[in-house]
Amino acid sequence: MNTTPPLEPRTVQNSATDMTELVLPPHTNALGTVFGGQVMAWIDICAAIAAQRHCGRVAVTAAVDELTFRAPIHLGDVVCLTAWLNEAFGSSMEVQVRVEVEDRQTRARTLCADALLTFVNLDHETGRPLSVPPLKTQTPDEEKRRCDAHIRRKARLAKRNA
Amino acid sequence: MNTTPPLEPRTVQNSATDMTELVLPPHTNALGTVFGGQVMAWIDICAAIAAQRHCGRVAVTAAVDELTFRAPIHLGDVVCLTAWLNEAFGSSMEVQVRVEVEDRQTRARTLCADALLTFVNLDHETGRPLSVPPLKTQTPDEEKRRCDAHIRRKARLAKRNA
Amino acid sequence: MNTTPPLEPRTVQNSATDMTELVLPPHTNALGTVFGGQVMAWIDICAAIAAQRHCGRVAVTAAVDELTFRAPIHLGDVVCLTAWLNEAFGSSMEVQVRVEVEDRQTRARTLCADALLTFVNLDHETGRPLSVPPLKTQTPDEEKRRCDAHIRRKARLAKRNA
Amino acid sequence: MNTTPPLEPRTVQNSATDMTELVLPPHTNALGTVFGGQVMAWIDICAAIAAQRHCGRVAVTAAVDELTFRAPIHLGDVVCLTAWLNEAFGSSMEVQVRVEVEDRQTRARTLCADALLTFVNLDHETGRPLSVPPLKTQTPDEEKRRCDAHIRRKARLAKRNA
Amino acid sequence: MNTTPPLEPRTVQNSATDMTELVLPPHTNALGTVFGGQVMAWIDICAAIAAQRHCGRVAVTAAVDELTFRAPIHLGDVVCLTAWLNEAFGSSMEVQVRVEVEDRQTRARTLCADALLTFVNLDHETGRPLSVPPLKTQTPDEEKRRCDAHIRRKARLAKRNA
Amino acid sequence: MNTTPPLEPRTVQNSATDMTELVLPPHTNALGTVFGGQVMAWIDICAAIAAQRHCGRVAVTAAVDELTFRAPIHLGDVVCLTAWLNEAFGSSMEVQVRVEVEDRQTRARTLCADALLTFVNLDHETGRPLSVPPLKTQTPDEEKRRCDAHIRRKARLAKRNA
Repeated sequence: MNTTPPLEPRTVQNSATDMTELVLPPHTNALGTVFGGQVMAWIDICAAIAAQRHCGRVAVTAAVDELTFRAPIHLGDVVCLTAWLNEAFGSSMEVQVRVEVEDRQTRARTLCADALLTFVNLDHETGRPLSVPPLKTQTPDEEKRRCDAHIRRKARLAKRNA
Repeated sequence: MNTTPPLEPRTVQNSATDMTELVLPPHTNALGTVFGGQVMAWIDICAAIAAQRHCGRVAVTAAVDELTFRAPIHLGDVVCLTAWLNEAFGSSMEVQVRVEVEDRQTRARTLCADALLTFVNLDHETGRPLSVPPLKTQTPDEEKRRCDAHIRRKARLAKRNA
Repeated sequence: MNTTPPLEPRTVQNSATDMTELVLPPHTNALGTVFGGQVMAWIDICAAIAAQRHCGRVAVTAAVDELTFRAPIHLGDVVCLTAWLNEAFGSSMEVQVRVEVEDRQTRARTLCADALLTFVNLDHETGRPLSVPPLKTQTPDEEKRRCDAHIRRKARLAKRNA
Repeated sequence: MNTTPPLEPRTVQNSATDMTELVLPPHTNALGTVFGGQVMAWIDICAAIAAQRHCGRVAVTAAVDELTFRAPIHLGDVVCLTAWLNEAFGSSMEVQVRVEVEDRQTRARTLCADALLTFVNLDHETGRPLSVPPLKTQTPDEEKRRCDAHIRRKARLAKRNA
Repeated sequence: MNTTPPLEPRTVQNSATDMTELVLPPHTNALGTVFGGQVMAWIDICAAIAAQRHCGRVAVTAAVDELTFRAPIHLGDVVCLTAWLNEAFGSSMEVQVRVEVEDRQTRARTLCADALLTFVNLDHETGRPLSVPPLKTQTPDEEKRRCDAHIRRKARLAKRNA
Repeated sequence: MNTTPPLEPRTVQNSATDMTELVLPPHTNALGTVFGGQVMAWIDICAAIAAQRHCGRVAVTAAVDELTFRAPIHLGDVVCLTAWLNEAFGSSMEVQVRVEVEDRQTRARTLCADALLTFVNLDHETGRPLSVPPLKTQTPDEEKRRCDAHIRRKARLAKRNA
């Protein structure tokens, strides 16, 4: 870790990212629904933008900690992705992503997938991790998500050491 | 035009659409900047979602009335598109799109392209135009854009008849 | 603008460009027709080749001045694009593109879209505009299109100054 | 769950899947390495083939339970993916995937990513889950991986109920 | 083979096909030149259009009889493909394709690849071959190519029976 | 040809390559089967990996000597490609590729295409050919294929000189 002066904290809102996609035939599988790998690719891009907005540099995907598919997405659907940081840990960030489909008529949204990913801020020359700004939470929800992120991280570290 | 009862007006805000893209190598040309056709494709998708959100059905691109490229977009850039309706005319809609690039460090946005497109609401079985809801403007800006849309439409019709 | 000796004029025929595409599933939308953004991308590439053939260097899309969709294009169709210069203005070029579909049985062609685009010849190091060769018209049709290009350019400049 | 007669068990070897990819520019990001979403897409396809080979029908991705990136993959690299089933649970299957890069000179392989995914066997008409054949383990390693899969599943169910 | 009345002969010129492509990053390999499989895909599409123009229906690639790469194609190059029929044999057609690169400055063309392919006209319902119109040659060159096609076909049939 | 000490022979098995693909909509044509150019692209990649594994460097496609399509491949199919060297000739290699489709239920494989390609090992700086290791055959089948490769090469050279 480098020893530069402490970085200015940044809010959750600062890096929150919205992405909208229209489902075209290249996104689908043999069943006419979006194939899993395409949803994962959209999630990765949306989370990568949020991470990059937080640390101001291109961050790299370190892990998908959880990704659950809840409903199929169909040809012609409008897909809305939202990504935000749950917590920043030294040089890494936990990013959460929600994937929703919007009904063309009613505009009602259905949750189709949600995910938790870890990104790291690497020096692209040396490959060494760089510090990211601390995350500043502003609402009880954001505070709750930060707590949960710490619990998950503890569990991951315990598992890795086991 | 069908003769169903008048449709409920819908606000500009209701169909406004944000799209975010991360520039990857397949989006670029031999100069390392995003190639023009890719920017046009993103603009078309963003505008198509706004049109579809307004009329509740898949709308079809009828024309690009203006599209100006103002600054190049580079590999790794975060691209932010915003689309909104300027006016609804019977079965067609004028949609405006702004394409901006966001500085990774400062988050400052630079306008890279802007465009005006016309979409139509077609019955996909018969190919005949279907009415779209009237547009409800709520701010002076929205009202100004509606006026400008009427002026542009008059000019287009005059030119077509000439 | 650079001050090199005047460039040799080049004929319209010299840079005229034909492109042929076969519509495959990745080109289509949820309705089974080619999606607007794909047609725009083909138009941009065809026009870019014509511009590059005229000035001998990679030219950059500056604007889509008009683009009208006249008929849908379907899966399996053979699409024929033709691009040619209407006029060269210092460092910019007005390029026109016609998009036609060819009937598989009769070979009859249907106009599906047409467009007018402006390209500029930029020095890729400095970003400054470079002169392009003057356009040499050889037929009354070519002369007519050059006149129309001057009328459109006058209108565009008037509008920009307004 | 349907009540058809018990399905014949199938071995781990029966559905094990090898996939080989050559890294081309469309797979990369702005850093010249394969972008995370592309690796996820390859993992999903490789795991989907293994799941489909086990149950004899198109299976659907239900979740990515873990996915860790361990080393970057570069342009021109040969990427080798291997997927196998750890256990079959009624209508779902836990599939593990290893992603390795092969040194061009020495043919030595480096682990770049590994993942655990859950697939379900759905009736595509009704959306209801269908039974999959039991998994027949044949080696101590396969037996060990089955035990670990049961431990992970217990933890997931406990977490979901919490 | 069906027993309908003899089909009207069609000229070589009638189905000759020109295709133009601009080389973008997704077409290239790790060396920055167009990857072989992309050139093959362009050749297949160009030849498929020529075959379809001759028989008036979607024809299917039966074989690549020869395909030689003669010079590399680079990022930013304009690629010109030309396809024409050498001969029609009952329900199959021999199609030849030339792939050239055009110098941006001088417009001089360099041969980069050439190929001979066989297409068949299949009834897409039954999978049975359908007759194609005879080919009408009009120049000594076309007559020479037809003779060569017969010699090649004899050699292929001899080899298949050996 | 360079004059470095003789290279160590390498076995056929050493460079044999297996590739598995799942057919998604972007791979198909208007008939719902995989389009010829896509099959060619897969064959080229699989053969290129085998050639690169043999000579330890990125090899370049020189020719497709034969490629026969034997059965259509459909959306959702699992495609299995196998490539191996038949013989190494100084700086070039003859690579054979089999493309099979696997029945989802029975796992029975059907041959869909087979091909023979020639790759060369070029110095990417100078464009000059570099020696490849000799091929070491270990079974009567491998020996038979090497003999056939020599017969084909003799025929190719005779034809080129004619």
